[in-house]
Amino acid sequence: MEKRDYSLTEAWGEAVQVMHRSGLLLVSADATGKPNVMTIGWALLGIVWAKPILTALVRPSRFTYGLVDLAGDFTVNVPSPDMDDIVQYCGTMSGREHDKFAERRLVVIPARQVHSPIIDQCLLHYECKVVHKNDVNPQMLAPDIVSNYYPRDDYHRIFFGEVVSVYGVPDFRQRASGLRL
Amino acid sequence: MEKRDYSLTEAWGEAVQVMHRSGLLLVSADATGKPNVMTIGWALLGIVWAKPILTALVRPSRFTYGLVDLAGDFTVNVPSPDMDDIVQYCGTMSGREHDKFAERRLVVIPARQVHSPIIDQCLLHYECKVVHKNDVNPQMLAPDIVSNYYPRDDYHRIFFGEVVSVYGVPDFRQRASGLRL
Repeated sequence: MEKRDYSLTEAWGEAVQVMHRSGLLLVSADATGKPNVMTIGWALLGIVWAKPILTALVRPSRFTYGLVDLAGDFTVNVPSPDMDDIVQYCGTMSGREHDKFAERRLVVIPARQVHSPIIDQCLLHYECKVVHKNDVNPQMLAPDIVSNYYPRDDYHRIFFGEVVSVYGVPDFRQRASGLRL
Repeated sequence: MEKRDYSLTEAWGEAVQVMHRSGLLLVSADATGKPNVMTIGWALLGIVWAKPILTALVRPSRFTYGLVDLAGDFTVNVPSPDMDDIVQYCGTMSGREHDKFAERRLVVIPARQVHSPIIDQCLLHYECKVVHKNDVNPQMLAPDIVSNYYPRDDYHRIFFGEVVSVYGVPDFRQRASGLRL
């Protein structure tokens, strides 16, 4: 199905619903173009420095961390409802040991404006260029978050991506709205 | 007009439109309850640490900075179209020298779940409790952003607020959509 452009926030409500229910797929690539994918359940979207911004959080232990850090861009892909098992798989297996694309027949195609590719089967895509990086600082974090999420001190790096393109299937909002609990 | 609850992302698209066009009003308060208001043009919304999160950026030079830092909460209020001049005023005058509420007849009323009040005339309100603070790090920031926004090295503090309540006028989306350029 032909995909169309979306405005920055047009589909964010539904994307957050999908993220909350199952997850979104963050794709990055190394210098040779070899891609990796991980599942994310946390992200923010809005405007900072007068730019459209999407932030994603990645732990230093993740294979994705080095890729995004070096390549300086990533894509966030909203999966379709029938990809739930893939989303779960991509959230538990590491790209260091698994070719998740081949194993789960994920089709990667070039993005429009960034080095990292997109996943063709997904319904919506955010292409992001990193303009700022910051690390979660345990000294300024609520104690319950520290104990719940950081027992091993592996604090996330927060990647602030300038959103350079948003596009997806024309009926994304309807298809994603159908997922609301 | 009676206000109703909104889901986290339900009105974010329209709130970003208003923010981009004129600005949103961030309200904080000191220990005695005395409020202050500033205009913000930058914010992000989504989920982090499995919590609904709204981030706002405040420069250390701002009067608001110390208030939010100490009180640990703030509200973000979406103004109505007829408040454009107030939004501009609140973005240029400091609460150190001006009682912006009295001067512009802004009515503050208690928030539902946080210490900082809300502005009654506004159409929509996000009540936020700070769960993380982080400072923009010039070492990991795009050079064009450094030169455009930080000639005086006054890097923003990023306040990550857990959104504990969202509510507004029932017809907020329609009224805000009417503002689209």
